[in-house]
Amino acid sequence: MQIARVVGTVVSTTKSDRLTGLKMLLVKPIDLETFEEKGNVLVAFDAVGAGEGEVVMICSGSSSRNTALTDGKPSDTSIIAIIDYIDLRNKRIFSKL
Amino acid sequence: MQIARVVGTVVSTTKSDRLTGLKMLLVKPIDLETFEEKGNVLVAFDAVGAGEGEVVMICSGSSSRNTALTDGKPSDTSIIAIIDYIDLRNKRIFSKL
Amino acid sequence: MQIARVVGTVVSTTKSDRLTGLKMLLVKPIDLETFEEKGNVLVAFDAVGAGEGEVVMICSGSSSRNTALTDGKPSDTSIIAIIDYIDLRNKRIFSKL
Amino acid sequence: MQIARVVGTVVSTTKSDRLTGLKMLLVKPIDLETFEEKGNVLVAFDAVGAGEGEVVMICSGSSSRNTALTDGKPSDTSIIAIIDYIDLRNKRIFSKL
Amino acid sequence: MQIARVVGTVVSTTKSDRLTGLKMLLVKPIDLETFEEKGNVLVAFDAVGAGEGEVVMICSGSSSRNTALTDGKPSDTSIIAIIDYIDLRNKRIFSKL
Repeated sequence: MQIARVVGTVVSTTKSDRLTGLKMLLVKPIDLETFEEKGNVLVAFDAVGAGEGEVVMICSGSSSRNTALTDGKPSDTSIIAIIDYIDLRNKRIFSKL
Repeated sequence: MQIARVVGTVVSTTKSDRLTGLKMLLVKPIDLETFEEKGNVLVAFDAVGAGEGEVVMICSGSSSRNTALTDGKPSDTSIIAIIDYIDLRNKRIFSKL
Repeated sequence: MQIARVVGTVVSTTKSDRLTGLKMLLVKPIDLETFEEKGNVLVAFDAVGAGEGEVVMICSGSSSRNTALTDGKPSDTSIIAIIDYIDLRNKRIFSKL
Repeated sequence: MQIARVVGTVVSTTKSDRLTGLKMLLVKPIDLETFEEKGNVLVAFDAVGAGEGEVVMICSGSSSRNTALTDGKPSDTSIIAIIDYIDLRNKRIFSKL
Repeated sequence: MQIARVVGTVVSTTKSDRLTGLKMLLVKPIDLETFEEKGNVLVAFDAVGAGEGEVVMICSGSSSRNTALTDGKPSDTSIIAIIDYIDLRNKRIFSKL
């Protein structure tokens, strides 16, 4: 999984029936060595109620469907957790509070 | 998922039986930081009736089969939504109308 | 999916039982902006009877198993169509005939 | 699969229900030619009880769910083995003890 | 699939139960244009009895589980064939004997 920041939203009315009710958020991966955003902005289905600016964990590929909200959906990326804290090499690099 | 623009079409008569009736469109991913096209042109199965030039959302991998039209098909990329608008860092960067 | 050219063949006698009878072709992806070959040569299972030099469509990942010939096989890339023509930005960039 | 080193931990309380009880570790892939860490730090579910600093094997994609602990979970990377030793071109490049 | 060379072995005693009995080999992809090794060394489960130095075909992703030996295992890469010969653009670039 990757750590990412929620950076926006996407809205669509003409879409696969199975997407009805799913919230689509923009996420940008965070490089944990620098804690800077890095890489392409992606669209992720929100399985946990994440908000703009929050640091989240995203799951890619078919496994992104293994949540109650995304089961059976055409999802290749979903937000599966809101992060409380991250320790890298015994140093706290992120804390939500 | 990725945001992409529909940039063309592909036609084939000699193909896997399961592809009969599926529309094949060329899509090029859009870098949302600049809203410029970026990356390789891909072929995607159209699950939503997208047209040339439209901004769409594509789903990659096995999940691209999780639509009514692509179920059971040899699909690694499908168009699952036509985008209405995109907000990035509280700024509207795309609106269909 | 990607557009690619068939550029060769691979033969193996010591292989997974499930590969018996499957034809293995070398394919090289084509960059559609230039129509030049680009990227690494891959091995693909042939699900459509493609020949050397032909322009084909390849499917990657688990979906490459969703053809009559590759069902249940250890396939991560298969040839699922022989291309007739390709239109990019309203210009015909490839025609088989 | 890739060889990686465990470099940290991630904690989340707001997450997909299915993640309850799963330990989330940070891992960084190791380039076996140099045995240096290389590439992005990832989050992996721990299926084997790995500890900080240990050299492990990670499995990516849907197969990362094929362990007793990650079955049915939204996992795209899991730790499936703690490495004892690695021989590259007839030279022992890593030994745990 | 990719062509690769077997370049080493990995041994682990603390691992997912499902890995018992599976042989883990190091493989390095071969660029077929030059027949030089290129890219990162990976760990692959051996489904065909390959030996050090042999040129093999590897399958990636969930399809790497579609062999008798890797079925249901946490495998993202397996060796599915030992290569006899490879013809690229009508030239034999590899022959086992």
